[in-house]
Amino acid sequence: MMVYLFEFIGTALLLLLGNGIVANVVLKGTKGSDAGWVGITIGWGVAVFVGVFVSADISGAHLNPAVTLGFAAAGKFEWQLVPGYILAQFLGAMVGSVLVWLTYKKQYEITENQEGILNTFANTPAIRSPFWNFLTEAIATFAFMLAIFYIAGGKMAEENISLGSLDALPVALLVLAIGISLGGPTGYAINPARDLGPRIMHALLPIKSKGHSHWYYAWIPVFGPIVGALLAALVYMLIGN
Amino acid sequence: MMVYLFEFIGTALLLLLGNGIVANVVLKGTKGSDAGWVGITIGWGVAVFVGVFVSADISGAHLNPAVTLGFAAAGKFEWQLVPGYILAQFLGAMVGSVLVWLTYKKQYEITENQEGILNTFANTPAIRSPFWNFLTEAIATFAFMLAIFYIAGGKMAEENISLGSLDALPVALLVLAIGISLGGPTGYAINPARDLGPRIMHALLPIKSKGHSHWYYAWIPVFGPIVGALLAALVYMLIGN
Amino acid sequence: MMVYLFEFIGTALLLLLGNGIVANVVLKGTKGSDAGWVGITIGWGVAVFVGVFVSADISGAHLNPAVTLGFAAAGKFEWQLVPGYILAQFLGAMVGSVLVWLTYKKQYEITENQEGILNTFANTPAIRSPFWNFLTEAIATFAFMLAIFYIAGGKMAEENISLGSLDALPVALLVLAIGISLGGPTGYAINPARDLGPRIMHALLPIKSKGHSHWYYAWIPVFGPIVGALLAALVYMLIGN
Amino acid sequence: MMVYLFEFIGTALLLLLGNGIVANVVLKGTKGSDAGWVGITIGWGVAVFVGVFVSADISGAHLNPAVTLGFAAAGKFEWQLVPGYILAQFLGAMVGSVLVWLTYKKQYEITENQEGILNTFANTPAIRSPFWNFLTEAIATFAFMLAIFYIAGGKMAEENISLGSLDALPVALLVLAIGISLGGPTGYAINPARDLGPRIMHALLPIKSKGHSHWYYAWIPVFGPIVGALLAALVYMLIGN
Repeated sequence: MMVYLFEFIGTALLLLLGNGIVANVVLKGTKGSDAGWVGITIGWGVAVFVGVFVSADISGAHLNPAVTLGFAAAGKFEWQLVPGYILAQFLGAMVGSVLVWLTYKKQYEITENQEGILNTFANTPAIRSPFWNFLTEAIATFAFMLAIFYIAGGKMAEENISLGSLDALPVALLVLAIGISLGGPTGYAINPARDLGPRIMHALLPIKSKGHSHWYYAWIPVFGPIVGALLAALVYMLIGN
Repeated sequence: MMVYLFEFIGTALLLLLGNGIVANVVLKGTKGSDAGWVGITIGWGVAVFVGVFVSADISGAHLNPAVTLGFAAAGKFEWQLVPGYILAQFLGAMVGSVLVWLTYKKQYEITENQEGILNTFANTPAIRSPFWNFLTEAIATFAFMLAIFYIAGGKMAEENISLGSLDALPVALLVLAIGISLGGPTGYAINPARDLGPRIMHALLPIKSKGHSHWYYAWIPVFGPIVGALLAALVYMLIGN
Repeated sequence: MMVYLFEFIGTALLLLLGNGIVANVVLKGTKGSDAGWVGITIGWGVAVFVGVFVSADISGAHLNPAVTLGFAAAGKFEWQLVPGYILAQFLGAMVGSVLVWLTYKKQYEITENQEGILNTFANTPAIRSPFWNFLTEAIATFAFMLAIFYIAGGKMAEENISLGSLDALPVALLVLAIGISLGGPTGYAINPARDLGPRIMHALLPIKSKGHSHWYYAWIPVFGPIVGALLAALVYMLIGN
Repeated sequence: MMVYLFEFIGTALLLLLGNGIVANVVLKGTKGSDAGWVGITIGWGVAVFVGVFVSADISGAHLNPAVTLGFAAAGKFEWQLVPGYILAQFLGAMVGSVLVWLTYKKQYEITENQEGILNTFANTPAIRSPFWNFLTEAIATFAFMLAIFYIAGGKMAEENISLGSLDALPVALLVLAIGISLGGPTGYAINPARDLGPRIMHALLPIKSKGHSHWYYAWIPVFGPIVGALLAALVYMLIGN
């Protein structure tokens, strides 16, 4: 049970801090409205640092169903733990995004930008195009997951591999790299729980000026990352190290 | 006595460098007026790095009454040292903010923005709302303190836990994360000494265009962080690690 | 063969993430258009981090023909491996830049800035002047390569020296330093494969509004870095350490 | 002789990369004109990282006469080495700033902002006021040098203390903190060689639109830092650790 609990805590911290910077930039009446793309991507990078640091030594800090599935598909993580991990990640992402809403409650009340409000929960593409949006998420997550395999440092001979707290900085820099460079078209979900969990909360929470939750787009940040991560697992198994 | 001295030095460096970047951005006639929120939060992050690095191996680098109370409440720090630590932190914060004033003396003389001048000492909320401002400070400090427990790395069985100089980078990245992401509504005091100590100096120092010290708000950056830190201590004790 | 494969993978990741941030800033219809020079140079820095981290423990992470030639000239790398390394670097750079094109496909379709599109593949100088552009690239690569020798940490007595994954952060900070400070006149290729490989792809790929590939300039980011790296090797051998 | 050579190389790299970012921001016809104060202070931070990393294991990476004098005054560095260190630092600073000029030669030719051109060599105050400018430099260098003593990690009992390459990151973050936060009034020389050496080169080099070298100000970035560093040495000796 402890591993699920820390996966929950790590993902909640990730979303609280990650979506927090988006709220700071997008909502009205904040102190960080000038932080821009550099601020958003640094913010997500250090959010990953905190989430991974706190949880890694207990749960291995997947914090992302695509990572969990990628490790499992490569034979480096036990399949029987997968459902609990993914459930914990989704619950953590939902709780984290509720905490962002509470932190910025007064700002949500005066903001009228509907897509902006949605973006403090979940992604929307810069240019709507299902095929290319999917491909962007798959490429970004492929690069992310391939690097994760080598940061986790698993020799092919070892049964399981996982991240430790000393990996928090490399993973944070990796996510900063993926985000700042490849996040331009879709906002880099690269994580089904990070997008779908908060999107559900966006639909449920009583926010005055929120618009619809762009459900048409919701499948892309789920399946794009999963496909990318599975491809990375395949390449990793073909190469070994 | 040495622990109190280093807690004083560390907190003075924290405030000198932390409020220094605010002065650089807010006051007239500086070279850093374009640094914005990214600059302010990076500045506070590296200020924490310096303060923690210098003091950690002697005093454990709390530099924050909420941290001291959180450690003590969790049974990880001796209660008899708490009053001296908090006194040293307040004195350090006051001395640090006086050094900022001396460093930027000519700039204070030509600046007329009253709230700006106050913000180089203490926080004001972006949107005034006591309950929600309090909650924001409590949530931000809860996340901060929970992570501090795991960075300090205490096993539940050990009697005391504390930060070392090798923890300076993780703590700095943590404070950058909290600040850039959750600082939007209140400017992230997350530290009673960091806010109240300099606010007292703002009231005392002879600054030409300063306005009032917004005492109505002063209780929030004191009690919000304390409540958040105590909640984190409670959660930490319930979970263990 | 494994060393060539990882040199290929590392350089592909470097170009995907490095040219990715340029695409994010330069193309129309992205989320990162405000990232500016700080964003571009941070993006390349973390791209280097990822590329080096993934490949260093297998191939030594040259990712750059100038580095390979510099090491070989200093007697620290076997000449017989040089052709394979350089080929792998060029192939990696070409594949990485094709992945950027796929990631930003819809953005390329609506962008009309011809030099901007070229810059998402290869460099153009801010002020055209072959001699001074060449000198800028040579000075930047000289400083880069000299530091690489000391990061790789080779004692003169050792036969070969190379980078390891623990060197990823120092090398990333080095490239950030070179880029942010010396990239002003030419955009800091400091790497023949990074510039010429993608420039070839720019000529080949079917991009609607692309202009010519500025072949007049192509020799400078190839020979400037090589001359700079060889000079650094000479100085390193004269000094030893 | 080797220590002087590496002190020369380290300071030359420091000035090449440090003044390089200023040139990139200030001169016309560069790619980094939007980097601003955050870019300048990050640039100097990573310049310090490179200079310290390359030289630390041989010379201890002072790269700054104020540091050399501070260590010597505290009894942690041999006085007989002081003249050679300071000479090497000045020569390195002069060579580094000439390399900046060569790197940005075409940009210097089209820039007409006289104070801007001077600032790519040496500092000028935001508000001219000898006493307060002096105090700003002394406070900033006091904080810098005090932290350097604890980063160098000397126990009072040891005869000499010095920086190693593993200290490059802490020192870089320290200089980033000092610069971003306390550099607003005077541009943070905190180093006599960094300011006076390049100022001499500014006077000597044939730059078309350069104005005078503001010699009235030149004593402040020399004696302010020295006084600050000596005060830090005094405090360090009184405290011990």
